Amino acid sequence: MKYDAEVKISLKKGMLNPEASTTQRALALLGYEVEGTATIKIIKFTLEEENEKLAMEEVDDMCQRLLCNPVIHDYEINITPSDA
Amino acid sequence: MKYDAEVKISLKKGMLNPEASTTQRALALLGYEVEGTATIKIIKFTLEEENEKLAMEEVDDMCQRLLCNPVIHDYEINITPSDA
Repeated sequence: MKYDAEVKISLKKGMLNPEASTTQRALALLGYEVEGTATIKIIKFTLEEENEKLAMEEVDDMCQRLLCNPVIHDYEINITPSDA
Repeated sequence: MKYDAEVKISLKKGMLNPEASTTQRALALLGYEVEGTATIKIIKFTLEEENEKLAMEEVDDMCQRLLCNPVIHDYEINITPSDA
């Protein structure tokens, strides 16, 4: 069975996010006053697995080993059966 | 009134995404077979505006002028009233 996985990676609270602060400063220079800017990355892919639970475990494994840095990142995994 | 804005930026269909293909190759090297890898970026912030429609227009403006490159990116804006 094929599953669509979506991994949402954000920086842990308190971590500096230079990309977000640069964006906020650049917006201010253009006259847009915004606050609390944050960035999130999503990685999406499709994988073959027997059931949803195993798919979730496999993706969690990928996050721990490659996709995320558990020291600085929080992550959230979403698994849905693939339409294809 | 304060609004939370979320801008979801993805590459247009057909654009090469070296970050995604590198991720997919690295996962394969670790023994995880996945396909159709894609990446999406989300930028979140809070802004002050009179109503939701004006907030949407202002954020769309920011996308056109700074946040996105309309030649290569698709974007999707989500505005919700801020809890704070």
